Amino acid sequence: MSAYEVTERTRVRRLPKRGHYDRETVHAILDAGLVCHLGFEADGQPFVVPTAYWRAGERVYFHGSAASRTLRALGGELPVCLTVTMVDGLVLARSGFHHSINYRSVMVLGRAVPVEDAAEKTAALEAFMERLAPGRWQEVREPNAKELKATRVMYLPLEEVSAKVRTGPPVDDEEDYALPVWAGVVPLREVAEAPVPCPRLKPGTPVPAYAGERLAGRRHTSAHAQ
Amino acid sequence: MSAYEVTERTRVRRLPKRGHYDRETVHAILDAGLVCHLGFEADGQPFVVPTAYWRAGERVYFHGSAASRTLRALGGELPVCLTVTMVDGLVLARSGFHHSINYRSVMVLGRAVPVEDAAEKTAALEAFMERLAPGRWQEVREPNAKELKATRVMYLPLEEVSAKVRTGPPVDDEEDYALPVWAGVVPLREVAEAPVPCPRLKPGTPVPAYAGERLAGRRHTSAHAQ
Repeated sequence: MSAYEVTERTRVRRLPKRGHYDRETVHAILDAGLVCHLGFEADGQPFVVPTAYWRAGERVYFHGSAASRTLRALGGELPVCLTVTMVDGLVLARSGFHHSINYRSVMVLGRAVPVEDAAEKTAALEAFMERLAPGRWQEVREPNAKELKATRVMYLPLEEVSAKVRTGPPVDDEEDYALPVWAGVVPLREVAEAPVPCPRLKPGTPVPAYAGERLAGRRHTSAHAQ
Repeated sequence: MSAYEVTERTRVRRLPKRGHYDRETVHAILDAGLVCHLGFEADGQPFVVPTAYWRAGERVYFHGSAASRTLRALGGELPVCLTVTMVDGLVLARSGFHHSINYRSVMVLGRAVPVEDAAEKTAALEAFMERLAPGRWQEVREPNAKELKATRVMYLPLEEVSAKVRTGPPVDDEEDYALPVWAGVVPLREVAEAPVPCPRLKPGTPVPAYAGERLAGRRHTSAHAQ
């Protein structure tokens, strides 16, 4: 796959070897995450709001209430920044200075585009559900006209994008390798636990496969990056 | 403990029952996280950058390279937003519309204050290490003057702060409870896996206790909020 054009705003300047601009790495990180942090400014104050997102091709979608301050503000063609981060481990070095964190992150800059058409909106929401829980869209009640109207769906085109990744062991100053302290990585990982049924669930309703292993598996895809 | 003053900018307007302003809830969420998302504006474009943070009393600290664009910009008294989010579960409802996510998040608004004094800087970095790995500061090589100079430490005072929390089962429309689809919560949880020693670790170096269970335990503290 090809790469995104590197701009002055997306070029990773500090530790440039951690920067990645190829679609494969960016898509893999976006597809492994569930919640992004959306940044925008209102009245001279930046706000950073966590929200669910999903990727479809070269778009990153997110959604929320049509009554939401955030999404109303974004509909006004504001510049936004959408950042996705997965923390993969604590890097314990032999000096305080070289401690670090292994992580994968993607930053998308742009302006959010609202999805107005009801059919397109429904298709986007279905794609979100299919990503998290394949087959579930067919099982649940689909959104009615009122619910669709109350839901705002927006996307950022993947145009100005970069990824930043750290992996691997600590990197210490040469003379510190002789120190007697333990050094290495404590991997951190998000896991799905046993599904907790709704207290009002009808007895005997089978637990779908996606509520267990598959959901968990989706979150752990590693980026193809060093 | 007392509560933070609610301002027009921190009051949770949508789903106000998810909003919390008491110190106990805010501190518990901040203490359970490791990486925050810092939002600030540069040249009319918002940026959202993941970075490690730690709380000490009524301050949230973060640090980075003195050469970092981000931290240099923040040193200029820019308004910033620091957001911490833990995703606790996927909420599978009986209708597409009522699907949700269980989460805990905190948003801090303010201006970052640089820590200039070397001793104060060292104490702050020690507090960070002690939080993650109690006892480790005594084991590793402490930062020297050059490293301290290369490290910028800043904090945001906890003044304009709010928390947002969703817990519990899906809430469906009354008529949807009769649908035959599974509904409930798939809990998500971050766990620490077996420590991976540095390839250059001296053979026989014991693995410290904090590299296993304790690190994991720290991340799972739940907020005292419904």
